[in-house]
Amino acid sequence: MEALNKLAELSYALDTFYFLMSGALVMWMAAGFAMLEAGLVRSKNTTEILTKNIALFAIACVMYMLCGYNIMYPAEAVNSVWPGLSFLLGEDHTAEAALASKGETYYSSMSDFFFQVVFVATAMSIVSGAVAERIKLPSFMVFSVFFVGLVYTIAGSWKWGGGFLDSLGFYDFAGSTLVHSVGGWGALVGAIILGPRLGKYGKDDRINPLPGSSLPSATMGAFLLWLGWFGFNGGSELIISNAGEANAVAAIFVNTNAAAAGGVIAALITARLVLGRADLTMVLNGALAGLVAITAEPLTPSPLLATLIGAVGGIIVIFSVLGLDRLRIDDPVGAISVHGTVGIWGLLAVPLTNSDINLNAQLIGISVIFGFVFLASVSTWGVIRILTGLRMSEDDEYRGVDVSECGLEAYPEFTGNR
Amino acid sequence: MEALNKLAELSYALDTFYFLMSGALVMWMAAGFAMLEAGLVRSKNTTEILTKNIALFAIACVMYMLCGYNIMYPAEAVNSVWPGLSFLLGEDHTAEAALASKGETYYSSMSDFFFQVVFVATAMSIVSGAVAERIKLPSFMVFSVFFVGLVYTIAGSWKWGGGFLDSLGFYDFAGSTLVHSVGGWGALVGAIILGPRLGKYGKDDRINPLPGSSLPSATMGAFLLWLGWFGFNGGSELIISNAGEANAVAAIFVNTNAAAAGGVIAALITARLVLGRADLTMVLNGALAGLVAITAEPLTPSPLLATLIGAVGGIIVIFSVLGLDRLRIDDPVGAISVHGTVGIWGLLAVPLTNSDINLNAQLIGISVIFGFVFLASVSTWGVIRILTGLRMSEDDEYRGVDVSECGLEAYPEFTGNR
Amino acid sequence: MEALNKLAELSYALDTFYFLMSGALVMWMAAGFAMLEAGLVRSKNTTEILTKNIALFAIACVMYMLCGYNIMYPAEAVNSVWPGLSFLLGEDHTAEAALASKGETYYSSMSDFFFQVVFVATAMSIVSGAVAERIKLPSFMVFSVFFVGLVYTIAGSWKWGGGFLDSLGFYDFAGSTLVHSVGGWGALVGAIILGPRLGKYGKDDRINPLPGSSLPSATMGAFLLWLGWFGFNGGSELIISNAGEANAVAAIFVNTNAAAAGGVIAALITARLVLGRADLTMVLNGALAGLVAITAEPLTPSPLLATLIGAVGGIIVIFSVLGLDRLRIDDPVGAISVHGTVGIWGLLAVPLTNSDINLNAQLIGISVIFGFVFLASVSTWGVIRILTGLRMSEDDEYRGVDVSECGLEAYPEFTGNR
Repeated sequence: MEALNKLAELSYALDTFYFLMSGALVMWMAAGFAMLEAGLVRSKNTTEILTKNIALFAIACVMYMLCGYNIMYPAEAVNSVWPGLSFLLGEDHTAEAALASKGETYYSSMSDFFFQVVFVATAMSIVSGAVAERIKLPSFMVFSVFFVGLVYTIAGSWKWGGGFLDSLGFYDFAGSTLVHSVGGWGALVGAIILGPRLGKYGKDDRINPLPGSSLPSATMGAFLLWLGWFGFNGGSELIISNAGEANAVAAIFVNTNAAAAGGVIAALITARLVLGRADLTMVLNGALAGLVAITAEPLTPSPLLATLIGAVGGIIVIFSVLGLDRLRIDDPVGAISVHGTVGIWGLLAVPLTNSDINLNAQLIGISVIFGFVFLASVSTWGVIRILTGLRMSEDDEYRGVDVSECGLEAYPEFTGNR
Repeated sequence: MEALNKLAELSYALDTFYFLMSGALVMWMAAGFAMLEAGLVRSKNTTEILTKNIALFAIACVMYMLCGYNIMYPAEAVNSVWPGLSFLLGEDHTAEAALASKGETYYSSMSDFFFQVVFVATAMSIVSGAVAERIKLPSFMVFSVFFVGLVYTIAGSWKWGGGFLDSLGFYDFAGSTLVHSVGGWGALVGAIILGPRLGKYGKDDRINPLPGSSLPSATMGAFLLWLGWFGFNGGSELIISNAGEANAVAAIFVNTNAAAAGGVIAALITARLVLGRADLTMVLNGALAGLVAITAEPLTPSPLLATLIGAVGGIIVIFSVLGLDRLRIDDPVGAISVHGTVGIWGLLAVPLTNSDINLNAQLIGISVIFGFVFLASVSTWGVIRILTGLRMSEDDEYRGVDVSECGLEAYPEFTGNR
Repeated sequence: MEALNKLAELSYALDTFYFLMSGALVMWMAAGFAMLEAGLVRSKNTTEILTKNIALFAIACVMYMLCGYNIMYPAEAVNSVWPGLSFLLGEDHTAEAALASKGETYYSSMSDFFFQVVFVATAMSIVSGAVAERIKLPSFMVFSVFFVGLVYTIAGSWKWGGGFLDSLGFYDFAGSTLVHSVGGWGALVGAIILGPRLGKYGKDDRINPLPGSSLPSATMGAFLLWLGWFGFNGGSELIISNAGEANAVAAIFVNTNAAAAGGVIAALITARLVLGRADLTMVLNGALAGLVAITAEPLTPSPLLATLIGAVGGIIVIFSVLGLDRLRIDDPVGAISVHGTVGIWGLLAVPLTNSDINLNAQLIGISVIFGFVFLASVSTWGVIRILTGLRMSEDDEYRGVDVSECGLEAYPEFTGNR
């Protein structure tokens, strides 16, 4: 009996520790997005995108604590559209309660909050890249308060909070759609409302490349995201303390890695064939596309299938990037394609390896989420536009937002004499 | 019985693993300081600060192994000022001894050493930033031998080694003062003795900005420190293997993150209001200030209070940076303010949420540590100044120390033609 | 009985988690090599080396899944030269089988695969640095398919798959030779066949430095490798779930760190004495040399001895770099010296602290591995040279491979006007 009690405590400790380490890895993704986006914008807008990325992470943490966590995971799972609203976090479990639950309560509630809170910023980081180089900093901040506080969390509650999409049989393991596409659609609306950067699209269908200022920074960012994704998918299994669950987490790590690898190779080959060059930015987006694609179901595929699911993601992302450019929707970092478009592919691929899931539920989920995020984003961006304006002045955009908003150049000695 | 023995071993293994992972995260902070400081100095001094940062980490590891660990954690806790002196590490526990202790010996002594050794470099990294761009490389190295070998460890022994500050009821969970302020005061003395960089302070109270060469590098550094801090504070609980301790570690992770987020937001708003711009370097220092502030007590505050404690840190740091500039104490990276000034705030905030701690003991601890580190640093910097000199020649400072000391430019192709 | 079964499951979970976290750390090393090499080449070849590094990681993952894992760890350990050949991964253990094994099967087979697969890329990353700035991108990719799919895995099977080197008593804990020297010799052959970069070696024995474009990037890379090595060596113990093994893993972390520190200090002092300057690139290589040196036996040395073993590595690497330059073998990043030359030292140092190992077996292992990798690399590079050519055109090399192969400059705004 004493042994069983101690065992229960030790299990609780291991699962808690696993949650905390997974959360720490996910927190990496914030750094990853910051580096990726800093490398893909021009140097005159780099300071601002760094500021945006660290500030949105902080805003996400505070908003999620204030109201988001309770919206997303209501105390009583309700099969409804509008979740209950309550504020702040509850108390952590007591050790006694955890023990008395005989394994039902198998990890610290604070560790769950930690894992969830670092997730939130991901959706917002996606938006940040797509609206880069032309949005006003304060307007972006205001959007992020609403987007992470309400839009992301309400959408999440429909599935992960036990809402109506969950009842429908919709399946999205770690958030191909609930995190990545949500970010992608918010980004899409932002990019459309803002319009393209000055000089991006010329007359007679000419598309001008506006190359990123530091590809080492972008590559570092992609590696950081890749690593962080082990926590993102691996931690979403939520439990590791028995042999079956440990096997599951291990399979998720393997498949997550395999999908990223598949995305890299497919994007490299596709870029060679379609663009005639080994375009590194496409390769990096290929890695991320592979990761987004496997996120909806990283457990049931074999490693070979996971590689292929990622590879398809890596191909899709290139055509999506090219397609958006045709439509003159300007996304400086490719975020809409990586997270929005490929997020759909991820959801559709679930029934291929998980026979419990039916395609209809997936299609309904995709549509509902798209519709909701689209409308919510249009409203939010729209209201902010009326109140404070969204787009910086042409003059600021030409000189770069770093000087006008942040008063600091990112690389004062390297570009100062231009 | 067999089950209980195996359980004890498994607990021991989990606590050891938790220590090792925490230590690995703390080791990140060395990389974080290196990137932060490399980004905040001018490019002509970047190679040297990178060299300093990797070398001081190595020196800290060796000195701590040779004598520091035994000074800081004497075999017999002595309520005295001068700890015993012995060299090298003892043997690791045997598995049999660990078992026979019935849970008293709950982790590998080597894992404890690993966790402590990566801590040490932190204090020295703080100094490195404040004296940047004007100190001679060998003089800095000699200082670091004494500072990490003796100053840091003696101060630490007074509390963590069971010395007289511990007996007084002084409380500093993971080292707001014992690590961060110790580094801050060593840095303060160094900055005063060295004097400001050439051209920093002009006639008639003019303060010239000498902007850092790479804000992406600085931002990466701040993110690395933020992540590493989960190990710094989370690992300082020292045990995770039962439900109560697992809850504690989880709460520490949440509060550490919350305080950093609070620091970011407060610093961003304060910078806007006071400086009229979203100054990224202030935002980064705000994040670090939040982290330093919560380090003295990351367990008892609620997440909301932790956010506020961090936010106050983020406000303090800006005024401290401005104040030091008024006093013409030149700190290129803001280290004295982040770690020294805010370290005091962290200690003073402990009684707000932990009623066991009284303010008097905290004030005594702050004063004693300040006095000791101040005097020890004055003596050490003073002796080195007499023996080898501290400050590089004006000519070297003008051309940059990279060429004269390291023979290598950090970015030879980006600034070569100036 | 119920308790013992649950205990077995919990052990299994902890060991699996330890494997996964170790693998995640090793995955860092891919990012580390990318940043290190990107910082040490000139900016005109930076995009390509980043592309190579992320692509080779992906290729390594796929090839290892397709055939490498089965070659290296054949289902039946065979004391033979040619391992059996089978494709793809088997099924993961079932939880029932793990339990029924009574502790024999102590971790998820997928977690083992994950740990091994991230290892593989290391060997290839080493080659990538040494052949930088002059090799054709597609030729490199083809080489990497064969090198990671066959050369590395066959060599590994001789020891870790229970092959003939294992029977001989050859000892290489985590791969000083089996990973690092294998990479080093592949790199050596590549560098010889390719010849030096244009302008590296002038007439009358003049050696022209071709300085790396970003030392902060290189330093970040070295820190990433240092951190990742805790997983590389620490995870190679393969088990942590009892007191004895936990002690072993902790000792390995301490020694790995100590050796790197020793390498840094020794290289710094040696560079000062021999080259007359604190050459940061030598210091970084010193850290890596210390890590390579301890990799053959990180368990039996005391921390002081580990520091010394690393220090000797830090000295050797400098003379090896200088020696290769004398021989006009051009290695832009020092990879042959760090991983090849110091890998030998690591193996020879094993008998110093582990009396079970005899020097003869080590010498035989070194020779056999050198001979095999040398011949296999000569053949592979040779065939590729005939089929597609290895070296880019002089014109491409002069302008930089980034534009011709990748169509993107790494830093378009910093060097554009030269």
